Amino acid sequence: MHLFFTPDISGDLYQLNEEESKHCIRVLRLINGDIVYLIDGKGGFYKTEIIDAHPKRCALKVLELTERYGKRNFRLHIAIAPTKSIERIEWFLEKVTEMGVDEITPIICQRSERKEVKLDRLNKIIVSAMKQSLKAYQPKLNESIDFKRFIVQSNEKVKFIAHCLDAGRKSLGQSYHKETDVLVLIGPEGDFSEDEITLAMKHGFEPITLGESRLRTETAGIVACAQLNFMNE
Amino acid sequence: MHLFFTPDISGDLYQLNEEESKHCIRVLRLINGDIVYLIDGKGGFYKTEIIDAHPKRCALKVLELTERYGKRNFRLHIAIAPTKSIERIEWFLEKVTEMGVDEITPIICQRSERKEVKLDRLNKIIVSAMKQSLKAYQPKLNESIDFKRFIVQSNEKVKFIAHCLDAGRKSLGQSYHKETDVLVLIGPEGDFSEDEITLAMKHGFEPITLGESRLRTETAGIVACAQLNFMNE
Repeated sequence: MHLFFTPDISGDLYQLNEEESKHCIRVLRLINGDIVYLIDGKGGFYKTEIIDAHPKRCALKVLELTERYGKRNFRLHIAIAPTKSIERIEWFLEKVTEMGVDEITPIICQRSERKEVKLDRLNKIIVSAMKQSLKAYQPKLNESIDFKRFIVQSNEKVKFIAHCLDAGRKSLGQSYHKETDVLVLIGPEGDFSEDEITLAMKHGFEPITLGESRLRTETAGIVACAQLNFMNE
Repeated sequence: MHLFFTPDISGDLYQLNEEESKHCIRVLRLINGDIVYLIDGKGGFYKTEIIDAHPKRCALKVLELTERYGKRNFRLHIAIAPTKSIERIEWFLEKVTEMGVDEITPIICQRSERKEVKLDRLNKIIVSAMKQSLKAYQPKLNESIDFKRFIVQSNEKVKFIAHCLDAGRKSLGQSYHKETDVLVLIGPEGDFSEDEITLAMKHGFEPITLGESRLRTETAGIVACAQLNFMNE
């Protein structure tokens, strides 16, 4: 299956950009009449046919549009402290995009060793994982934000904070109800500080555990995503 | 917490090897009376005290031994086709070790692009993830084996094959019952062949799906591990 990410598509005709045209015609050696699929990042999945196999301006005609392709039954927002090694956050992004996620916010916490991320590069990883796993919705990656500012402004109704302190946490399985939109906070290497946990709880975040294992930051994010998607099956 | 992997420990005294001694005394600058923890890979978790802070032969006295540390309530065996990029299998191993797994078998399938793996390097990744996530049990990593040979010799009672063909698969949630030992097969890029699926089913493997998403090999392995550990919480 030949699949392209075309967020600017509208109407029944589409012209691939120069790089994509070259890939289609020179690399894949496609010709008029061949089938190419498009995703728009907003739920649209297009079956198209090549009507002009031009190596710089390849023209496509939409044969079939499926809207809300792969629409899930809940909305998942993960706010996660970027890891010291950016590679680990890149893997996290690839994996949660494959599994299913709607929004990701990098949060800068008291114990964060990394204070910034480059969104361009991370968005490329997301788009590549979307194509790989046939996702028509593009997860929204926000600018990084200070933990305290984020906590105060988040207005989701169901909000969890996954931390490692022993006191009074339930499992995600006990706390979450199927088909509910949800925000989960995942802390940095070294965990959230007690102050951060207290502040989050004041603002309606429920403390949860993701199981008995001591997980790395990116693993915790992946496990939370896997558990929530599983509960929504 | 200072933690070492010491599979050869027995009795109340232990001497760290030269590299570990150097790390303890020269790098961490520990002294007599300092506490060091050990895991033996067989469920033993040891609290020890330095009694001779020698930079080449650091001697430890066991203060406390916890047996079956973090023992789980089911046994999980994942047989997985090694990915073309070995890095992806390394991440898989790190993540499933963190989450909890007992045995891993690399299986060589009809559509496998990679036919061999280097166990030494992979075992190092497992041990590093054990230390990171405080696991006292070392997951057993088997030599790679041909799919057909493996299918015939596997004698677990509950066996699943995760594949992407549409016909008659249940979800893992519908098929698996808590606290049951289980073997899961994860196929290569390009999936198991129809012949392989038929053969597996003849030998008692039940076909399952891990959800609606099209997952990469290593992601499927991680998701299966996350779902099974979650169901056993």
